[in-house]
Amino acid sequence: MSKDALLHGPGPTNAPPALPDGGLRVVALGGIGEVGRNMTVFEYEGRLLIVDCGVFFPEDDQPGVDLILPDFRAIEDRLEDIEALVLTHGHEDHIGAVPFLLRLRPDLPVYGSRFTLALLAAKCKEHKQRPTLIEVREGERRDLGVFGLEFFAVNHSIPDGLAVAIRTPAGLVLHTGDIKLDQLPLDNRLTDLAGFARLGDEGVDLFCVDSTNAEVPGFVTPERDIGPVLDDVISQVDRRVIVACFASHVHRVQQVLDVAQAHGRRVAFVGRSMVRNMGIAVDLGLLQVPEGLLIDLDQAANLPESKVLFVSTGSQGEPLSALSRMARSEHRQISIRAGDTVVLASSLIPGNETAVFGVVNGLIRLGANVVHQGNAKVHVSGHASAGELLYLYNAVRPSNVMPVHGEWRHLRANGELAVRTGVDPRNVVIAEDGVVVDLIDGQATVTGRVEVGHVYVDGLSVGDVGESTLSDRLVLGEGGFLAINVVVDSSTGRAVSPPTVSGRGFSDDPKALDAVLPLVEMELSRTESEGITDPHRIAQSVRRVVGRWVAETYRRRPMIVPTVIPV
Amino acid sequence: MSKDALLHGPGPTNAPPALPDGGLRVVALGGIGEVGRNMTVFEYEGRLLIVDCGVFFPEDDQPGVDLILPDFRAIEDRLEDIEALVLTHGHEDHIGAVPFLLRLRPDLPVYGSRFTLALLAAKCKEHKQRPTLIEVREGERRDLGVFGLEFFAVNHSIPDGLAVAIRTPAGLVLHTGDIKLDQLPLDNRLTDLAGFARLGDEGVDLFCVDSTNAEVPGFVTPERDIGPVLDDVISQVDRRVIVACFASHVHRVQQVLDVAQAHGRRVAFVGRSMVRNMGIAVDLGLLQVPEGLLIDLDQAANLPESKVLFVSTGSQGEPLSALSRMARSEHRQISIRAGDTVVLASSLIPGNETAVFGVVNGLIRLGANVVHQGNAKVHVSGHASAGELLYLYNAVRPSNVMPVHGEWRHLRANGELAVRTGVDPRNVVIAEDGVVVDLIDGQATVTGRVEVGHVYVDGLSVGDVGESTLSDRLVLGEGGFLAINVVVDSSTGRAVSPPTVSGRGFSDDPKALDAVLPLVEMELSRTESEGITDPHRIAQSVRRVVGRWVAETYRRRPMIVPTVIPV
Repeated sequence: MSKDALLHGPGPTNAPPALPDGGLRVVALGGIGEVGRNMTVFEYEGRLLIVDCGVFFPEDDQPGVDLILPDFRAIEDRLEDIEALVLTHGHEDHIGAVPFLLRLRPDLPVYGSRFTLALLAAKCKEHKQRPTLIEVREGERRDLGVFGLEFFAVNHSIPDGLAVAIRTPAGLVLHTGDIKLDQLPLDNRLTDLAGFARLGDEGVDLFCVDSTNAEVPGFVTPERDIGPVLDDVISQVDRRVIVACFASHVHRVQQVLDVAQAHGRRVAFVGRSMVRNMGIAVDLGLLQVPEGLLIDLDQAANLPESKVLFVSTGSQGEPLSALSRMARSEHRQISIRAGDTVVLASSLIPGNETAVFGVVNGLIRLGANVVHQGNAKVHVSGHASAGELLYLYNAVRPSNVMPVHGEWRHLRANGELAVRTGVDPRNVVIAEDGVVVDLIDGQATVTGRVEVGHVYVDGLSVGDVGESTLSDRLVLGEGGFLAINVVVDSSTGRAVSPPTVSGRGFSDDPKALDAVLPLVEMELSRTESEGITDPHRIAQSVRRVVGRWVAETYRRRPMIVPTVIPV
Repeated sequence: MSKDALLHGPGPTNAPPALPDGGLRVVALGGIGEVGRNMTVFEYEGRLLIVDCGVFFPEDDQPGVDLILPDFRAIEDRLEDIEALVLTHGHEDHIGAVPFLLRLRPDLPVYGSRFTLALLAAKCKEHKQRPTLIEVREGERRDLGVFGLEFFAVNHSIPDGLAVAIRTPAGLVLHTGDIKLDQLPLDNRLTDLAGFARLGDEGVDLFCVDSTNAEVPGFVTPERDIGPVLDDVISQVDRRVIVACFASHVHRVQQVLDVAQAHGRRVAFVGRSMVRNMGIAVDLGLLQVPEGLLIDLDQAANLPESKVLFVSTGSQGEPLSALSRMARSEHRQISIRAGDTVVLASSLIPGNETAVFGVVNGLIRLGANVVHQGNAKVHVSGHASAGELLYLYNAVRPSNVMPVHGEWRHLRANGELAVRTGVDPRNVVIAEDGVVVDLIDGQATVTGRVEVGHVYVDGLSVGDVGESTLSDRLVLGEGGFLAINVVVDSSTGRAVSPPTVSGRGFSDDPKALDAVLPLVEMELSRTESEGITDPHRIAQSVRRVVGRWVAETYRRRPMIVPTVIPV
């Protein structure tokens, strides 16, 4: 069989067969074929184990949506079959949807490391939930019903990450979570490659591997190499410094604090999530803060410019974040001045470029100097590059591989790396969300598909905004609408008052719609003369006339909304 | 004066003073502070000369807009003062708005090189215009009234680019247009650095310089180095090859054709603009096509897969382009198959990442191998990097510098390069769109600002879609709308039929609005009991009630559109 046949293809459309006795089933309800909302369900002998439950942040074609959840339909009739939820680490795309799963099953036991659970607890508090949290740590084993779990330390861009091995009689699965192999990690907590190798000796039947950076050749630079770069940047300036980074990146912040301390600058945290997460990190001993280093914004305002450093949210150009407000001169406490230095110590997540560069341009326009990964090595990725993934494959020597956490381009690249280390191409399954993989007699096979759609959270409500609403929003967002209101005599169909035509999102010109009113009136005369009294038929006629007029006159496609009220 | 003081700041808000006799005024109506819609107006002794007149492609916060034009208001009362329009090259961001300027002044003489004018002529034909086109070439001089022009060859990502020197008694200006310094250009037409140096000897008073790549260190790889990479990619595959690139990049296409020829593949052009532009390039002798190389799509379908190569549009993920259709399995003639190789021989323009990666993922999912600038050197930029810009500054040795063609980050970086070559920081003017720069007695100074806004083209109409319409579209696109229709007795204010509440883009749930109707009815009873008969006041009350309900119930902000019809 050629390699081609396995590393592509939208896969099956059939519902999966019943899972044979002794087989293990794996289905991702999110996170494969996309970067975000990671959630993988393992099933053995009727029991379910879930790894991660994250959110996805909406894209341009999903307007007005706050969050996208994994699709729980495949498990919502089997909530009591779920043995546990295991969290690999505390990023939003791995824990963000937990409160929504807990709404369905409030007593679900949630396993994770200390920092992961602390972040989850803060999140659940906002949702007024009191989840059952069970702390585990690397090296530990837990038997949860039919599932034997073992946890391994992994290094990532957030402290306290775990990989999880899952033992059942069907075989041994290893799920990396998000992972990289920094060989000089700031906290000296290495990814446990030795442990993975030991599992490899035992025989890993299915290896689920982070695909994010599979396309990137080589190795990720150690996190600790950023420190000297930050030191160099900050040593050259005698005005204010603002460093923006992810609010969960404790090791990045640690290095910023160390550099600030070395240069006699005091530090203020800016942005709600930064303040909250760093508080948690200090409490857990993950962030070391020298006595007296931290100040608040009022204190910062009273210090000389050369003695202040801000650590801020907003590195992705989020419009409501502290840094975006500064760039628009809308932050209440910090006004950017000529000579300020702003460091974006962060990645540039694809899709965020316009927003991030908008912030950069705004800051520069106000006179700031902006340092970012494009002009200085102030960021390294949290995900293993191809070179590191090869180490993983060679340590684990898996029988079957299932790339996770990535778009198609990442999954394919990851699968190809597996093949290059000797994994049989027939044993590499690229299983996008919903594709069912069964591990039977040591062979992973795609056997079917369950339905997986996008579940949108908009405001307080989950799931009532669907594709039809989004499609209406796209039409309205592109062209606005024209509303035509007609009151007719219900027995004759005659208009009892002049029709009104108005538009929103159509034109700034108050006369833009003048010409359409006579056409509507003519059409109403016609429907009346034909004896049409059904409001729906009258509305259809009006929609047709107005739609044709606007297409011919403006070549635009606003939504046409006729309302015919019989009295 | 510190460098800070000149390289930043939003600049003045005052209207400019009258231009003194003997002074030269420069105002960009587009293209500075943004990448796109380049248009610079030069004024001397009451006469105007315009360099370029391009379009800008809208961003996320400008929904439904097709194009954005430079703001002509500053010149629309002075159309007869315009001596000429000079075009530096044929890209859309330099020529795309010409038909809209010609609507105001149909007899405006337009100067440009042969290929530039050929592309413009094709565009004007679509607009049913017959412009006055005057062909010029490098080395040529033209006296247009008070303006003495001299043209210089420049190398860019489209053939036949020109820089223009403008001589008036106020001084000598050199405008680069878009430029790079490929020292081994495919057509052997070098950027005329020697000519620039000669101008430098004469004394350049104001140097307007392309800023696009000023942040990028070093030098752009020669275009011709792409040929061997393409050769290497294509020599390794025996299935179909599809190369996507810009439809105006004649030299890129030339290299693709040469490689196809070398490997015995015949070539079909895909996409309307590719077919049109390459036809023009062949006619003008800019593209050399071996006899019998080109075939059409039907012929391609009948050849073995190893004998075919397609050259396609769609390298930026444009949703309607040929390549996007292929990625969605919607192209009528080309279905992507496992083993196809797709080469994106193109840049990844910031803001287009999501669209481009969407296409890449779609192609990979269908089994194609995708080669792009992230995994092979199949693209080089058309704009000078910092190293090349230093050559330009050192050749020209200008007295004053005005960075053009860039966002703030590019402009600032370009200005800093000028300073590093010895230009006095006080003589570097960062003049975003509308900022007025006067060159008087050899000194360029910012003297004021004219109003420059965004002029939107939507469908057939220009300018009637403005900020208020866009702001409505953004609201509608995020949250849809709720329409409440009420018919009231005009003398009593009593509702004569039950009010209706409906929503679009709000919810998929048919019961989502059930609870609001009683609230509206209650509010109508209240307004009636208070004797309120004014439809506007009734509508306001209804809007308030519904708005509050939806905010509390859903935490959403749809547009609330009450219509109260008195009968």
